[in-house]
Amino acid sequence: MFFASDNAGPALPGVMQRVTEANAGYAMPYGADEIMEEVRTALRAVFEAPEAAVYLVATGTAANALALACYAQPWQTVFCSEVAHVQEDECNAPEFYSGGAKLSLVPGGDKMTPETLRARIAVEETRRVHGPQRGPVSITQVTERGRIYTLEELHGLTGVAREFGLPVHLDGARFANALVALDCTPAEMTWKAGVDVVSFGGTKNGCLGVEAVIFFDPAKAWEFELRRKRGAHLFSKHRYLSAQMAGYLENGAWLDAARTANANCARLAQGLGKKGAEFLHPPQANMIFTRFPRGIHQRLHDAGARYYIWEGTLEGADPDEMLTARLVCDWSISTQQIDLFLSHFDK
Amino acid sequence: MFFASDNAGPALPGVMQRVTEANAGYAMPYGADEIMEEVRTALRAVFEAPEAAVYLVATGTAANALALACYAQPWQTVFCSEVAHVQEDECNAPEFYSGGAKLSLVPGGDKMTPETLRARIAVEETRRVHGPQRGPVSITQVTERGRIYTLEELHGLTGVAREFGLPVHLDGARFANALVALDCTPAEMTWKAGVDVVSFGGTKNGCLGVEAVIFFDPAKAWEFELRRKRGAHLFSKHRYLSAQMAGYLENGAWLDAARTANANCARLAQGLGKKGAEFLHPPQANMIFTRFPRGIHQRLHDAGARYYIWEGTLEGADPDEMLTARLVCDWSISTQQIDLFLSHFDK
Amino acid sequence: MFFASDNAGPALPGVMQRVTEANAGYAMPYGADEIMEEVRTALRAVFEAPEAAVYLVATGTAANALALACYAQPWQTVFCSEVAHVQEDECNAPEFYSGGAKLSLVPGGDKMTPETLRARIAVEETRRVHGPQRGPVSITQVTERGRIYTLEELHGLTGVAREFGLPVHLDGARFANALVALDCTPAEMTWKAGVDVVSFGGTKNGCLGVEAVIFFDPAKAWEFELRRKRGAHLFSKHRYLSAQMAGYLENGAWLDAARTANANCARLAQGLGKKGAEFLHPPQANMIFTRFPRGIHQRLHDAGARYYIWEGTLEGADPDEMLTARLVCDWSISTQQIDLFLSHFDK
Amino acid sequence: MFFASDNAGPALPGVMQRVTEANAGYAMPYGADEIMEEVRTALRAVFEAPEAAVYLVATGTAANALALACYAQPWQTVFCSEVAHVQEDECNAPEFYSGGAKLSLVPGGDKMTPETLRARIAVEETRRVHGPQRGPVSITQVTERGRIYTLEELHGLTGVAREFGLPVHLDGARFANALVALDCTPAEMTWKAGVDVVSFGGTKNGCLGVEAVIFFDPAKAWEFELRRKRGAHLFSKHRYLSAQMAGYLENGAWLDAARTANANCARLAQGLGKKGAEFLHPPQANMIFTRFPRGIHQRLHDAGARYYIWEGTLEGADPDEMLTARLVCDWSISTQQIDLFLSHFDK
Repeated sequence: MFFASDNAGPALPGVMQRVTEANAGYAMPYGADEIMEEVRTALRAVFEAPEAAVYLVATGTAANALALACYAQPWQTVFCSEVAHVQEDECNAPEFYSGGAKLSLVPGGDKMTPETLRARIAVEETRRVHGPQRGPVSITQVTERGRIYTLEELHGLTGVAREFGLPVHLDGARFANALVALDCTPAEMTWKAGVDVVSFGGTKNGCLGVEAVIFFDPAKAWEFELRRKRGAHLFSKHRYLSAQMAGYLENGAWLDAARTANANCARLAQGLGKKGAEFLHPPQANMIFTRFPRGIHQRLHDAGARYYIWEGTLEGADPDEMLTARLVCDWSISTQQIDLFLSHFDK
Repeated sequence: MFFASDNAGPALPGVMQRVTEANAGYAMPYGADEIMEEVRTALRAVFEAPEAAVYLVATGTAANALALACYAQPWQTVFCSEVAHVQEDECNAPEFYSGGAKLSLVPGGDKMTPETLRARIAVEETRRVHGPQRGPVSITQVTERGRIYTLEELHGLTGVAREFGLPVHLDGARFANALVALDCTPAEMTWKAGVDVVSFGGTKNGCLGVEAVIFFDPAKAWEFELRRKRGAHLFSKHRYLSAQMAGYLENGAWLDAARTANANCARLAQGLGKKGAEFLHPPQANMIFTRFPRGIHQRLHDAGARYYIWEGTLEGADPDEMLTARLVCDWSISTQQIDLFLSHFDK
Repeated sequence: MFFASDNAGPALPGVMQRVTEANAGYAMPYGADEIMEEVRTALRAVFEAPEAAVYLVATGTAANALALACYAQPWQTVFCSEVAHVQEDECNAPEFYSGGAKLSLVPGGDKMTPETLRARIAVEETRRVHGPQRGPVSITQVTERGRIYTLEELHGLTGVAREFGLPVHLDGARFANALVALDCTPAEMTWKAGVDVVSFGGTKNGCLGVEAVIFFDPAKAWEFELRRKRGAHLFSKHRYLSAQMAGYLENGAWLDAARTANANCARLAQGLGKKGAEFLHPPQANMIFTRFPRGIHQRLHDAGARYYIWEGTLEGADPDEMLTARLVCDWSISTQQIDLFLSHFDK
Repeated sequence: MFFASDNAGPALPGVMQRVTEANAGYAMPYGADEIMEEVRTALRAVFEAPEAAVYLVATGTAANALALACYAQPWQTVFCSEVAHVQEDECNAPEFYSGGAKLSLVPGGDKMTPETLRARIAVEETRRVHGPQRGPVSITQVTERGRIYTLEELHGLTGVAREFGLPVHLDGARFANALVALDCTPAEMTWKAGVDVVSFGGTKNGCLGVEAVIFFDPAKAWEFELRRKRGAHLFSKHRYLSAQMAGYLENGAWLDAARTANANCARLAQGLGKKGAEFLHPPQANMIFTRFPRGIHQRLHDAGARYYIWEGTLEGADPDEMLTARLVCDWSISTQQIDLFLSHFDK
């Protein structure tokens, strides 16, 4: 009953198989391996972007920080939601990699709107040389609260960025979960929607540790390569990154895994709803925030369920007090585990 | 016939097996996995350092840059050889991670001596606030030219560092190759010799991509953890790093691999010597620099041998011109491949 | 009729005289000049802090950024108001000097309260290594909206900082204006109120360009000296900075200048009140934000008055629309100029 | 008898007069003052560069570090002599301002030659993404050892830079001293010789603290303005910088001051030569390195002479041991002081 995060489950069998198969003989280092050639071709096809510059790194923070650094000058500010991963969960990595850029937080929780974004952008750069200069817009899809921007919403945000001439980054740590929920193409969710660079997550959806960074305009390619090396994120035995991504993409394994994770989450949410649990937002992808009484949390905890209590603390006298849980499903959670989890509501 | 580097061969079977075994069920992320507990215990035992702070990262540059950054203030300078990996092969990663520290190069090729090191240190910090301040000493063992510092030589260098109150970092990307050549204990080659922090390489000697950073004084532990996260080098699915290192250490696999690599290299060097090749330095570990005529280089190249020509170019009219090759043996090179390589000298 | 800022008026006669007098013969460079010795003694006496480390730089941004950098690690976040000068008007200098620290904005305009500050601090560092770590609190006195923290309010804020073990910086670009308004001692407004380091402004209150940075605990002294030099803020002909500060402190010139500026502002505000202008806040120091109709703004502008229109634009059809002006008085504004300014309300 | 540096003498009377005159009424801040307009026009005329972007900062280190940062990416390396001010005397300011670029030292003392420069450049960037990338060339004129590059020598160096497509920075802290010695035009010593950006020193040659940074191609103008502000080097009461530079340029005061300083130095050198002192290099500008016995050093020291002993220490038993002095003459040293200095050789 592990719902703490989608970064704690195992890798997909097909991913691990490719890694194992890659472990034979010699391979050119530093991204010159043949599997990377396969990956590059595959990702360009997936994104319908034959000119795209495609790179692999091992962590989502590396993907985000390196991608943003290619677009954010040190005297600029990055626009993102107030709970964005780049703001809350990267220990100042964007500031580090950009050489000291700022993050300007768009108020309103996990989702920006054209209005809130425009208002925040408008504030900056009204003081000429004195204030931070406007920099890239970073959008998280799936958001940190489990919600998904529709294509229309994405177009709305990138349209505002375009008004101000600002580049757009998409933090797609859960790219696949959003994609299958929207039932659109990768191109539609990225460059056709005005995105310039995407962090295409693999780790949370069934890899060991690999993320792609995809620039739809390859003009930043060489700069990225230098930044990646300088940031110590260029792997010598790069084939093991390539193999993960190859296995992830092969036969749509990445889409299947995301569909499974989303379906797991829907089943969990449906069950919780029946038990009377409340939701912060309607379930959209593979992560929900849900409220139910402390007494049930305690039973679940004692039974070995693992997840974050987002608001409130397990310790407390009142068994009826409502505590908010964050529950995340990865591809590997079984329906039995979900049903077992739900069964504790009835005891 | 792949002698280009020890970063292009496969991982040890035992390493891959542990990675595969790790791929089951859930594991706590970010270094809280149980395998990391095993690794921590094992490395502390290997180094006879029960208090040591032990961390894993995925690249050698990350290990070096993060370790040095914990000891080098931005206004300081790091002392290293003029061909140190941190100087030549990390695209300014030490400068990046330290926030702008300088590197002061000790002249004399790949090995520093107490005299050359002392002379270089003495130059700095003679201008009070105006010049760079003295920072850590970084020693590469095995050196970038394939040589090994004896324990006496290490003590000589760390003694100079101690004279000036400077901390000592050991870049041990080829730690195991040096260790088995010296036939000493890890403790003797590190903290007993005055080393404060070591980059303990795994990647080149049979892992997929993992290096340990070991602080013998744990005072820097929390700072390292923050720097690692900020540098985007903290893995969520950390178990796959842990599993590599666990497999690497298990049953002395790491020592066996290094002995094999060194023996491969010795066999290669002995054969080359018989063929009349010259050596930049006598073979000591698993890397040699050797000179022989262009004509033979061409035959080898045509036969599929892969290695760097260190001085000179393969293109050229004179088949008798001497070109210098860098030849590196990893654990996986077969004696047949070595003998095949040597056979091309006779044709 | 120049009310645009207190950074556009001339220097005090006594300040300029000391600069002129300093221009004779040789003086030791880089802060070893005799006048600096006098300044150090004087500032220690003014602050009743015989152990304080005292330094001079030429700009307020340098004072703030260097002071904060001594207390803010790159992985930390600085707490300040959402309109703090360090946030809005320094083009990311704090991020630059700290090596990439973040600024966490306390909502509520120009003044923080213990409650808003505590709430903002509480949010950070709840994610262990993943989020930014808590760093120093920076308080601006006089605030960017012309208000003053009472001693009680200062104690309230520093008390919260102490709860969390955080150091406190005071941005005193208008230190003197606040001090004379509070009618307290410099010690009471700084270290006795829990402040660790202060940017003691000179430029806006009658110097050419000089600010002191005063550390009440000298432990950071040498680090500051290295950061100042590395930041290119160590003057070779330092005597000209020293002379300014000497003249500024001599015979209480700095207090007289601030009293004059505050009185100028009070006279202006009183006159404006009589004319029906509205105020964002009651006048407290030497800066007010006041609303009156566009028609009057236009008359003032045509007559040569210079100030920032804070909200709204001078261009516009409706002469009755209310626009907000920021009006700042320095020591040198004459009562005639103020009265002339006011006279334009009647035409 | 102050020969320690040209940063310890007074400002030129004409410079101080302009500063004093500037101290009246209001002036637009941050470089929008009218005197800056005058300075911009004057410097463009002096350099025959009507398009040049012209800025003022207060320290030579700021001029160098900001100018270089506009041309050196963080993953690049700056080429300079092994004793360059940017290397030895700026406490890592170039590394700080560039965000972590490296400095590659060209061996051979204070002067680079086309051959030594080309050899050093050739070494870098032979490792593709792994090593530092080639960045700007920085030339110091007058060198740190008091020597001057002829125009032919300058063309030689910039020609090598052009071969590799690298920009050229001239550190002209003693620009005027070189110019009058070469008897050429400022244009000939800069852009006509292939220089892209120059740090045009004022401080050492008779200002209080002001240096101009001049970009002959204004494409970097806005970036410089942002870097200057972010570096806290944008003065609010900018008129006092402008006034210094205006007085410095007026009526050729800067050239007269340099001629005087050089003549002072020549007189000193001639006198020393007659006394049997030896010289590191023949005197060329306003700084010499000269060897004479400790006994004379001691007499001079006791008589109040102030200068750096470059090699050796004043303390020592042997009065005949030769110690090397660095002697610098500024514009204000009197011939009497020089003769008094020389008289101590005879006692």
